[in-house]
Amino acid sequence: MTKQILVTNDDGVLAPGLLALTQEMRKIGNVTILAPDRNWSGGGHVKTLDRALRLREFRLEDGTQAFGSDGAPSDCVALATLGYFKEKFDLVVSGINVGANLGHDVTYSGTVTAAMEAVIAGVPGVAVSLEVPEGHIGQIDFSASAYAASIAVQNVLEHGLPADTLLNVNIPFLKHNEIRGFRITRQGLRVYHSRLDERVDPRGRPYYWIGGEAPTGVVETGTDVGALSEGYISVTPLQLDLTAYRAISDINTWNWQEQTPL
Amino acid sequence: MTKQILVTNDDGVLAPGLLALTQEMRKIGNVTILAPDRNWSGGGHVKTLDRALRLREFRLEDGTQAFGSDGAPSDCVALATLGYFKEKFDLVVSGINVGANLGHDVTYSGTVTAAMEAVIAGVPGVAVSLEVPEGHIGQIDFSASAYAASIAVQNVLEHGLPADTLLNVNIPFLKHNEIRGFRITRQGLRVYHSRLDERVDPRGRPYYWIGGEAPTGVVETGTDVGALSEGYISVTPLQLDLTAYRAISDINTWNWQEQTPL
Repeated sequence: MTKQILVTNDDGVLAPGLLALTQEMRKIGNVTILAPDRNWSGGGHVKTLDRALRLREFRLEDGTQAFGSDGAPSDCVALATLGYFKEKFDLVVSGINVGANLGHDVTYSGTVTAAMEAVIAGVPGVAVSLEVPEGHIGQIDFSASAYAASIAVQNVLEHGLPADTLLNVNIPFLKHNEIRGFRITRQGLRVYHSRLDERVDPRGRPYYWIGGEAPTGVVETGTDVGALSEGYISVTPLQLDLTAYRAISDINTWNWQEQTPL
Repeated sequence: MTKQILVTNDDGVLAPGLLALTQEMRKIGNVTILAPDRNWSGGGHVKTLDRALRLREFRLEDGTQAFGSDGAPSDCVALATLGYFKEKFDLVVSGINVGANLGHDVTYSGTVTAAMEAVIAGVPGVAVSLEVPEGHIGQIDFSASAYAASIAVQNVLEHGLPADTLLNVNIPFLKHNEIRGFRITRQGLRVYHSRLDERVDPRGRPYYWIGGEAPTGVVETGTDVGALSEGYISVTPLQLDLTAYRAISDINTWNWQEQTPL
């Protein structure tokens, strides 16, 4: 039975990373594309309930039919899995994102939250992101990322994923033949270098950018950040249960009765 | 030393739940308010980097000074912790949200993701949400929620929270004297009943609502959903490490070498 694969992303339906992913996925199954009609990076896990969504048809550079919506990546997955298409999907793959999604990035990331939405809808989800050095100019080579996506997706189609679990795949910025292989990792720690950048508009009123250098990470073996720094593709299983189980017994010892203010 | 508390929410700076929370927090410490200038429900964990943010001053109903921004709840926390105010915050509390944030709601929720942003900034975060029955009409009584927030916040100020951990507090829709107490819980399972609702605009073009009934939950003892259904306030510690640790060894046995397509 031909596998039905939904492709989405957060860089927008016409982004070259989506085209590269589509061409690779077409070797594995039947591909349907529904992605945002604009860039949604850093947009988080959105469920758009306060407005209606529009969809329209696009053509990718190679002529492939695709659909774009004015919703977030997670909205695109919701539209697709709620029945906008007649297909029942076996898997949702999101990417190839320009920029790694490591550590704390995962709850911000449109790429990863699209895969979360798939999992909530009961469909296995895979997010694929390519580390791209800050300030990189020029065309991006997605071939190693397409390869990584292919291996990950074939594995998920063959083995399935545990309930409420998705795969977060990150590829180092290396040529295909320089990559050392795959590492199954845990989520590492991002270090953000955000700064508040106050400016004044032509009418004398202040406005604020969240500025600063690109985030770095704590390089530690066993983590997503560590794998990339050592030249490996990182595959992190992520779960939607965020419970901090180890904190429960301690918090149970706190005073949860009526108190007078401190 | 007076505690510095940042209050935010996702229903907008003028929402009555924020006023109720502010009045309670003022008994504990010095309160600063920065919240979205409009409703951001379901907006996810946003980091706005592609546009500048504006801030302006508001007055709450009781005359309290507050600030509103055109960013998401998490942007408000970023602006506040990156130095928009001179205060260094000891705690960020978000709410009181109209509507519970249970199970899978947590990554969508502006209320919870504001607390996540606090934790990423190194400040303890507490999210407070009140279950409100669908279709409820009339003024909402926030007194039990304000009480729950007070107990939770005082506990966090006294004991601290483990690294990368926040508290997600949910209050059942009961009178203060009907509430049976607190339960420290794990994240339960939401059941969404979304449907795709296709309509046609006056110009004959289709548009789509994500419709359907309000989500329900799997009632299970020990979970957030279970606690509320039994008349308890639910306190769930949530962590930002989403790694599905139990899946790692199994995924390690998959074939991560070059493969021919399925």
